[in-house]
Amino acid sequence: MERIDDLERDGLKIIQNPDKFCFGMDAVLLTGFARVRQGEVLVDIGTGTGVIPILMTGKGAGRMHYGLEIQEDMAEMAARSVTLNGLDERVKIICCDVNQSDKVIEGQSADVVTCNPPYMNDRHGLQNDNRSMAISRHEIACTLDDVLREGARMLKSGGRYYMVHRPYRMADVITSMRKYRLEPKRMRFVYPFEDKEANMILIEAAKDGNPFLKIERPLIVYKSQGEYTEEVKQLYYG
Amino acid sequence: MERIDDLERDGLKIIQNPDKFCFGMDAVLLTGFARVRQGEVLVDIGTGTGVIPILMTGKGAGRMHYGLEIQEDMAEMAARSVTLNGLDERVKIICCDVNQSDKVIEGQSADVVTCNPPYMNDRHGLQNDNRSMAISRHEIACTLDDVLREGARMLKSGGRYYMVHRPYRMADVITSMRKYRLEPKRMRFVYPFEDKEANMILIEAAKDGNPFLKIERPLIVYKSQGEYTEEVKQLYYG
Repeated sequence: MERIDDLERDGLKIIQNPDKFCFGMDAVLLTGFARVRQGEVLVDIGTGTGVIPILMTGKGAGRMHYGLEIQEDMAEMAARSVTLNGLDERVKIICCDVNQSDKVIEGQSADVVTCNPPYMNDRHGLQNDNRSMAISRHEIACTLDDVLREGARMLKSGGRYYMVHRPYRMADVITSMRKYRLEPKRMRFVYPFEDKEANMILIEAAKDGNPFLKIERPLIVYKSQGEYTEEVKQLYYG
Repeated sequence: MERIDDLERDGLKIIQNPDKFCFGMDAVLLTGFARVRQGEVLVDIGTGTGVIPILMTGKGAGRMHYGLEIQEDMAEMAARSVTLNGLDERVKIICCDVNQSDKVIEGQSADVVTCNPPYMNDRHGLQNDNRSMAISRHEIACTLDDVLREGARMLKSGGRYYMVHRPYRMADVITSMRKYRLEPKRMRFVYPFEDKEANMILIEAAKDGNPFLKIERPLIVYKSQGEYTEEVKQLYYG
């Protein structure tokens, strides 16, 4: 059943349905990591609830935020969230398959692409019986290669691609990025606790960029069980 | 001028010459990160002072440790360090160009390869006027691609390649590893302080391994200015 959640940032709200898919910390951390400049055009690939473009409007001065979503019911719900926030002028949700995105987003038209893709491929884990959950988590409707190739196509030279993914796929992410002339420039690793393995990676790649990668300070999520670090509190509650 | 330094581990010592090149924390952290099992054969590519094979004898039960070094005077000095430690039965320093290493190390004969390569290529920094320093730091005598290709050649299927490098080259390291069927399996990022950018990466790749990468807990070097964290103290002083 649908509910309206308060994003606790800039007065923004989001409609979610726990029977389908709710956004996670991944989307929030990716939004915190991404940079947007005045007047830029952004595309979020696989937008789901629309949380990333909606949060990005609060973060920056982007001119237009497109959210592409293959599932009709998700896209329709995301569009209602946009309207609920009075953002119809700045956010446009488009229901389409990323592999058909050339019909809706022109080549080299975007300054920024964001993507919180399905993490698992055939090697990893069982697929959820719930089709909507499964599409969000497994590479069913699109693969890592698809979202990178299509994002690279949309980006202007020098444009930035922001992705969140799991450490176990990092070598895939980096080799596939380079295949599409997306050069990794800035990364951050997310560790749930300071003495635990990383469970997320955040990456910024520049279209046609020169090789030179910075690895930023570690992002630690919890300082003790159930208590966020100051940085994560800041990301969640401004 | 040469001097003898105490490695403060297992009673080991090393001959160094500050006019040429002294080993750094990189080599110590790589040795701490690498794993060796009973009876294995190890090859260290570009061994310099020989610090890595010498430290590895104290760490594990490797049967034979080869150290390849292109510079004659460095190789000769490293060989004297081996003798000084009474390790002639377990460590053999070989003066050779890594690109000619097929003459001295057979294909698929090694269980473990270690490498602390020159970090900089033509894009990065001025070359040192001191030839020995320059060879240790810049890709003059060998490139990243050379040390990976030759190391992969030496390794048995399933064998492990351990490398330390700089974050700015990480995308190069990962894409080149995959080119030679070295699959990244385990990484650790070294941050000088917990709120600073990483300045080293440690990586274990498996020859012919399946894609699945773990990013271990962050390795923080200093807890305050001049004071090592407990983990680094442990690595340095046992």
